[in-house]
Amino acid sequence: MKTIVVGAGLSGSLMAIYLARAGHEVRLYEKRPDPRGSSAEGGRSINLALSTRGIHALEQVSAARPVLAESVAMRGRMMHSQAGKLRFQPYDAREDKAIRSVSRAGLNRHLIETADAETGVECVFGQACTGVDAAAGRVSFRGADGQTSSAEADLIIGADGAFSAVRASFQRADRFDYDQSYLTHAYKELSIPPAEGGGFRLEKNALHIWPRGGFMMIALPNADGSYTCTLFAPFEGDNSFASITSDGDVREYFEAHFPDATPHMPTLIRDFRDNPTSSLMTVRCGPWHRAAHVCLIGDAAHAVVPFYGQGMNASFEDCYLLSEALREHAPDVAAALAAFYSGRKEHADALADLAIQNFIEMRDSVASPMFLAGKGLERTLHRTFPGWFVPLYSMVTFSRIPYADAVRRSHVQVPIARGILIGIILLLIAITWSAFR
Amino acid sequence: MKTIVVGAGLSGSLMAIYLARAGHEVRLYEKRPDPRGSSAEGGRSINLALSTRGIHALEQVSAARPVLAESVAMRGRMMHSQAGKLRFQPYDAREDKAIRSVSRAGLNRHLIETADAETGVECVFGQACTGVDAAAGRVSFRGADGQTSSAEADLIIGADGAFSAVRASFQRADRFDYDQSYLTHAYKELSIPPAEGGGFRLEKNALHIWPRGGFMMIALPNADGSYTCTLFAPFEGDNSFASITSDGDVREYFEAHFPDATPHMPTLIRDFRDNPTSSLMTVRCGPWHRAAHVCLIGDAAHAVVPFYGQGMNASFEDCYLLSEALREHAPDVAAALAAFYSGRKEHADALADLAIQNFIEMRDSVASPMFLAGKGLERTLHRTFPGWFVPLYSMVTFSRIPYADAVRRSHVQVPIARGILIGIILLLIAITWSAFR
Repeated sequence: MKTIVVGAGLSGSLMAIYLARAGHEVRLYEKRPDPRGSSAEGGRSINLALSTRGIHALEQVSAARPVLAESVAMRGRMMHSQAGKLRFQPYDAREDKAIRSVSRAGLNRHLIETADAETGVECVFGQACTGVDAAAGRVSFRGADGQTSSAEADLIIGADGAFSAVRASFQRADRFDYDQSYLTHAYKELSIPPAEGGGFRLEKNALHIWPRGGFMMIALPNADGSYTCTLFAPFEGDNSFASITSDGDVREYFEAHFPDATPHMPTLIRDFRDNPTSSLMTVRCGPWHRAAHVCLIGDAAHAVVPFYGQGMNASFEDCYLLSEALREHAPDVAAALAAFYSGRKEHADALADLAIQNFIEMRDSVASPMFLAGKGLERTLHRTFPGWFVPLYSMVTFSRIPYADAVRRSHVQVPIARGILIGIILLLIAITWSAFR
Repeated sequence: MKTIVVGAGLSGSLMAIYLARAGHEVRLYEKRPDPRGSSAEGGRSINLALSTRGIHALEQVSAARPVLAESVAMRGRMMHSQAGKLRFQPYDAREDKAIRSVSRAGLNRHLIETADAETGVECVFGQACTGVDAAAGRVSFRGADGQTSSAEADLIIGADGAFSAVRASFQRADRFDYDQSYLTHAYKELSIPPAEGGGFRLEKNALHIWPRGGFMMIALPNADGSYTCTLFAPFEGDNSFASITSDGDVREYFEAHFPDATPHMPTLIRDFRDNPTSSLMTVRCGPWHRAAHVCLIGDAAHAVVPFYGQGMNASFEDCYLLSEALREHAPDVAAALAAFYSGRKEHADALADLAIQNFIEMRDSVASPMFLAGKGLERTLHRTFPGWFVPLYSMVTFSRIPYADAVRRSHVQVPIARGILIGIILLLIAITWSAFR
């Protein structure tokens, strides 16, 4: 089957590998130049957290091992208080469980190389999709030289990200539900270089968080000893990006709020000035499929904010689930796309909500004693009844339970856990009371 | 001030009148040809329900009288049961209160004529907006002949409807929240001609409803004795448009579900075949203003489904409120647009929800005895305590209380009304019991 994949980002290149293995004749189009050429990534090292769903999807096409080899394990959150006090919170009761910090650029290069090495995959770079005629099964492109062209296929996959051109074509048609919404917060990437003489300046195997209520900074380790930091703060108002207008303001802001990190950030002023202040968007839409043979996957179908570390993992899971649907319904592509969408949509919506909620939790609640006590009880219950009680974070991160199912299961579990806690407290009171009687 | 209004539909042409009266130099652009030319409306007579908010906004620029003169008063809902039984439900306790059925095309022509007669308004037809450069204050157009042009202004109003090109430019920029969602139902316009020898075939002063649970038909009277009917039914499934594939199916469907109306619809088969099956979309977005001098109004800002009869009324109210904001904040246009948006947004959202809820009520609940008893009690309370208890429908339709405030007030009123009902029932039981003791 002739198949076009629009976008050779993370989901598009993995999808191309899956489709090639299933015998499709794939053309993988990407608007940017070939990332395997000279320094296309521009020097910044951006990383992402790879976890169970993503690893599973990579493993199905034997693409996981080199990725994991170059990753850094993060076993929990390392919270940095205002006073510089550290507190480590493991992600799971099984303390060897870890999420993996991977380089986005390195992972993308690896997937493009793997796709390109497949029989039946042709990679075409420097071709931007300008629209899709869904009924005709035709995709239009504009080359870097301004030349326009078009290509036809039996199956067209839009894997062209949060600002998808394929999805924009859907929007111009009738009966396409579409919702984009922005947070009032923005983000900016910054960096901590390796220690002099090599090595890590902070604890290596953790995701570092500086929670400050309405804003926060995080840092993920890179294999070379550096960390990629991200500041999340409001666009306007208290402690906002708008409140920082000079180099002096940058220094003051960081020294006031992140005093233990600032000495490790020698390029702070330059990073802050050079790196963009970016917005955070959630996209919900549907249906993802159109005219029997066009389908959206990944961020094009469901862009989420980054706070649950699941955007890439969900996109990789899409590749696995869509290829399963195509296999189960073969040769009926229309049925496969409809089944993929109807099975996946509620879980994509659930993840969008989880990601927004986790922002509140990360920037705020992780610092509160009640929250920490709750997490501690969850870990204890999970250790004691591992088959019955699994914290929501673990279900999302360390299992492949569909997102909405994980949320529903957690809605049952959490009140029971609270009941147990109240029961224990009442018992303690009763014991104390009878002891003193 | 040089002002461009994009779209000479209902809200655009009224807005142009308001702005001209306030001394703006207005250019009113419309992509369609001048409707005052030969039969531009294509023969179909489409009507809309004008009520208090819309009338008030027209009155402020002395444009209401000729509109009302050509309208037909509708004093309530006339429900048609499957068996052809009629039941009249007045819209308000003050039974002379009426909404007005007006011809969309006639009203639009009247407003364009009025705008064109204003000093300072120039109407430009056959120019489709292709985009807005908000920062530069420039609007691009493509003429009917394919020629492109552009125009600049100090204030740009996007009044170009539910599929707004001005709004599409906002969507391509950062941090614009946008949500479009479709109902699973579609609509098709049909007609009942005047009686032979003139006159109305159904009760004249009513909005006719044939509620059938999952679907319904409505009919609004026109001044010439005809009615414009609209069938609302699901796209797919039971009693859906998809289930009607032949002329015989049309006849069977109407004779089965609307037996008392069908004899009055001699052009049913042709109407059904010729008129489109259209979707029903809600648009929520924000902010409506951009770069200090571009603003959306009407359907471009908040398209709603037609079931509360408030789409046009809300758009006209926008014209009044925006011109008030411009007057209050003069000469600060940016502050006026921000104030208009922040004051209006929650009410537009409230109306969107009300319109969807009223679909359920119209197609379904209006036929139930409990619903009718509730409406009767509401009317009695309103008659008894007119200053205190005002049914939600009356607040929305016969007052200018902002939509969200009306909803909040109704949330307070309705439980009290239920309480009174329960109190009366208990009292009756007590009296009965003591009488038999």
